[in-house]
Amino acid sequence: MTTYTLQALNNVPAADFIAALGDIYEHSPWIAEAICAKRPFATLQALHDAMVAAVRAAPPDKQIALVKAHPDLAGKAARAGALTAASTNEQMSAGLDRLSDQDYARFHQLNDAYKARFGFPFIVCVRRHTKDSILRAFEQRLAHSADRELDAALSEIFRIAALRLDQKVTADDKLKVTGRLSTHVLDTYSGKPAQGVAVELWELSASGESRPVAHGVTNADGRTDAPLIGGRPVPIGTYELRFDVAAYFAARGVPLADPPFLGVVPLRFAVAEPEGHYHVPLLVTPWSYSTYRGS
Amino acid sequence: MTTYTLQALNNVPAADFIAALGDIYEHSPWIAEAICAKRPFATLQALHDAMVAAVRAAPPDKQIALVKAHPDLAGKAARAGALTAASTNEQMSAGLDRLSDQDYARFHQLNDAYKARFGFPFIVCVRRHTKDSILRAFEQRLAHSADRELDAALSEIFRIAALRLDQKVTADDKLKVTGRLSTHVLDTYSGKPAQGVAVELWELSASGESRPVAHGVTNADGRTDAPLIGGRPVPIGTYELRFDVAAYFAARGVPLADPPFLGVVPLRFAVAEPEGHYHVPLLVTPWSYSTYRGS
Amino acid sequence: MTTYTLQALNNVPAADFIAALGDIYEHSPWIAEAICAKRPFATLQALHDAMVAAVRAAPPDKQIALVKAHPDLAGKAARAGALTAASTNEQMSAGLDRLSDQDYARFHQLNDAYKARFGFPFIVCVRRHTKDSILRAFEQRLAHSADRELDAALSEIFRIAALRLDQKVTADDKLKVTGRLSTHVLDTYSGKPAQGVAVELWELSASGESRPVAHGVTNADGRTDAPLIGGRPVPIGTYELRFDVAAYFAARGVPLADPPFLGVVPLRFAVAEPEGHYHVPLLVTPWSYSTYRGS
Amino acid sequence: MTTYTLQALNNVPAADFIAALGDIYEHSPWIAEAICAKRPFATLQALHDAMVAAVRAAPPDKQIALVKAHPDLAGKAARAGALTAASTNEQMSAGLDRLSDQDYARFHQLNDAYKARFGFPFIVCVRRHTKDSILRAFEQRLAHSADRELDAALSEIFRIAALRLDQKVTADDKLKVTGRLSTHVLDTYSGKPAQGVAVELWELSASGESRPVAHGVTNADGRTDAPLIGGRPVPIGTYELRFDVAAYFAARGVPLADPPFLGVVPLRFAVAEPEGHYHVPLLVTPWSYSTYRGS
Repeated sequence: MTTYTLQALNNVPAADFIAALGDIYEHSPWIAEAICAKRPFATLQALHDAMVAAVRAAPPDKQIALVKAHPDLAGKAARAGALTAASTNEQMSAGLDRLSDQDYARFHQLNDAYKARFGFPFIVCVRRHTKDSILRAFEQRLAHSADRELDAALSEIFRIAALRLDQKVTADDKLKVTGRLSTHVLDTYSGKPAQGVAVELWELSASGESRPVAHGVTNADGRTDAPLIGGRPVPIGTYELRFDVAAYFAARGVPLADPPFLGVVPLRFAVAEPEGHYHVPLLVTPWSYSTYRGS
Repeated sequence: MTTYTLQALNNVPAADFIAALGDIYEHSPWIAEAICAKRPFATLQALHDAMVAAVRAAPPDKQIALVKAHPDLAGKAARAGALTAASTNEQMSAGLDRLSDQDYARFHQLNDAYKARFGFPFIVCVRRHTKDSILRAFEQRLAHSADRELDAALSEIFRIAALRLDQKVTADDKLKVTGRLSTHVLDTYSGKPAQGVAVELWELSASGESRPVAHGVTNADGRTDAPLIGGRPVPIGTYELRFDVAAYFAARGVPLADPPFLGVVPLRFAVAEPEGHYHVPLLVTPWSYSTYRGS
Repeated sequence: MTTYTLQALNNVPAADFIAALGDIYEHSPWIAEAICAKRPFATLQALHDAMVAAVRAAPPDKQIALVKAHPDLAGKAARAGALTAASTNEQMSAGLDRLSDQDYARFHQLNDAYKARFGFPFIVCVRRHTKDSILRAFEQRLAHSADRELDAALSEIFRIAALRLDQKVTADDKLKVTGRLSTHVLDTYSGKPAQGVAVELWELSASGESRPVAHGVTNADGRTDAPLIGGRPVPIGTYELRFDVAAYFAARGVPLADPPFLGVVPLRFAVAEPEGHYHVPLLVTPWSYSTYRGS
Repeated sequence: MTTYTLQALNNVPAADFIAALGDIYEHSPWIAEAICAKRPFATLQALHDAMVAAVRAAPPDKQIALVKAHPDLAGKAARAGALTAASTNEQMSAGLDRLSDQDYARFHQLNDAYKARFGFPFIVCVRRHTKDSILRAFEQRLAHSADRELDAALSEIFRIAALRLDQKVTADDKLKVTGRLSTHVLDTYSGKPAQGVAVELWELSASGESRPVAHGVTNADGRTDAPLIGGRPVPIGTYELRFDVAAYFAARGVPLADPPFLGVVPLRFAVAEPEGHYHVPLLVTPWSYSTYRGS
């Protein structure tokens, strides 16, 4: 993907500006056109706000056309590989490209029910979600009034646009579109950070499946060298951190029961704010542990 | 099963005494015979100790015959329903009556390897074990010398006998053959015991299967009305307590994230001492929890 | 003090009944007289309720006379040893018999201000209080209306009466007049109850003084053999439990820093409900600890 | 105090170098002289190591003369204001300039006993100590052999010199002479950092006195804006952090008991490594708290 600096975009000819930002809103270059004359933008946030304002100022039929320009979630187009590159990547992020036949049928049915009710496809900012939270949102939004749902759809489109802008344009400021999930292991048996603990992050699904999404080993400060999720939204969903505590203590010669009272410790929690900072530490001895939402 | 008081057994004719206790050791009434003349026994422990001493005093070939009197673990006899009632119940307790074909084959192979090496069947006090811990014991004991392994087999037979005695004879004293697994939920958000929390106890297996073994709801004291496991050994193995924390807090009107940061909290731990007391409490707010091996 | 069974009191001649219970309300045998004909009382609670009802049914001047029958708190009568035995013991429980001259003057001044405002002495059920909480109650109640304060004074008199009844009369039921303060030390370094930890309970005062009120050593279950406070109300006030954690770990050969990171651990908390159960445990390693209001 | 860059000191004339560093060792410019010709020093650590090596290479009588060049701790010279400026500041840091008459007498007696035993004054790097830890060191070192104690005295002199160098010379590297004491309050009732908690740090003394040494208010991240102690050694001693937890929760409208179960929470701990990082956090609800040595 070509990226631009905000400064460059403020100075290129209009046609280039529109070419650069025409895809920020799916198949809708008219939004970039609408704001082109408002350049220069002092910040990336100002550019984003101007695009949002242009959509909000448009008449309802044009807004609905914008919504309709989006593909079905996990729809035939996705299976057929007929999406824009941006949409393809977004749908992959929540695993919508590798649904079971049963899940595919469920999405198909919900898409149809939704379109029958509202006349446009269901839009959600997929990068902020897991499959489970999309299904939950689907059901909640099917109960909306038409007005409220158009508003909900536009809100999701703005979130999608903000993430696309964040990746395409660099500037001195940042849009608040990313979150962070990190951990920290403190060995309260010996009073110091636990170094060398293997950690896995799993995404759990209501249907009982789970899949690993990150892993690491704690360093001398008891942390993984990088956050387990960072630089992107933390998808709404349920997670489990798994720490191999028995291996850690055994390697340090600490006396343990056989089998050890604590082997792999799971910490299970849910993420509700994709742009939030979730710090989920483990304080642990061979016989006790605690955790909390930290910061 | 007919039960007896110790006092009655001290006073019945010898033939009745032997009839009553002839099955405490599998197909080996000679042990009851050997101690009959030593009556009266002041305590159940004294009765048990006398039977153990009779076995220890017997010549090696008689000890080996005692070991050989036991059926194969999860063997053909079990599948064919040809065990003593006591053995059937014991093998059921660890799920050996419902093995997958793969596990059945694994047991068959280990039984054969063990018999080829030691000349007698593998004995383990099944009520103190899960399938996983039996497989682990199998592998460890296959590495023993013949002498050490005969001793290990007798130790297991004494444990089996103690559990059978405990069920068959009542006395003022108790043999130390039972353990306890209990929990307790403290709501540190409101500073009181958490009443009404649904709790499940699952047994986990290294192969990834898990099965529920007990469940309950906490009472006004934050405890289940009865221990989750009590009055019997706590099988060596890995367990998970699962607490529906989100439902508890939601029912009390506590503000929660959507989805709640903590939904079902799993506490995973292993039991190494079947006769121990495992108290595994949960101290919890909507944003934090801790646990420890209590007493 | 002579004690009676409820059954005996239900059956003695009226004069003996009145003699036995005439002092339950300070210098006011008319209350026992008023309920004598209502015998038999099925429970101690019924007896207490009947006495309360007799007071509530009396005309205001008789109620006020009852209030006036009580001595000043920490007053001249106390210094001169001129109280009933019951009042003397009650005032001693909060240390009102050993006030500094400054505190004595403060009580004197508050008593005078209170009597000037309400026309009767300040009554408080001293056994439920510490000096600090009495002074706080004094100030709060000085702001009451006359009606509300008469009601407050009677409520305190009923509490005093209930405690006196509880000590004088035994029955199958108990009045809910006692609380409990207990602790429990769990060694999460070694995963078992901490045995042999020296514990002190101190009562703290806003003026900075503090005084030891109980002490003990933890037993094999990590508890003191008896609650630190039990069988009586837990006085409203601020407390500190102090645990000699360094001595405990050092005696077990646990490696410690020099000086140990944790030496004497203080847990400071306040009691608001004298009839409540305050269980304040310590979960501790050489490098961490936690506490909570348990049950 | 005049400060220098390492680069400047590497380039000035020898006389200036000696003038600048002549006081790093008390009244002993010969040490700066001894290393002057070894310039340039690549790092501050190399400069320090060279001075240490010069002392270690000197004959015993010169080493003893260096020790004797130091003043008595809390001695007459200190009371009379006759110390070098550096010594005065150092002795002030542990409160040795404001001893009670009793403590002054105790120091006097220990100084005399020490000098009678070893023939030189007791030297300790005061900035790493509290009064209590100095008295403890005094007693431990009085039991040393003469050889071992000369070594101990030189070690303390090297620590003093390192701290003086750290303050006088700036370079790209830093000597490891400073520690840090910090805290962090996490509100596990609402799942976020506790902002606005008043925190005090007290230094406790075995004699029962205590004195405040720092205070702060937690910011949006639950931390004080600066460490409570930083940029200097954390004196060996016992400390108490005091958090006004009741005021924090009351200000947020959280329901509390009256008086609140937790008012001011004290965390008491000892520092053993003046150059260590002591992070002592508080995780707290209105009914529970925990702490640990963090990093």
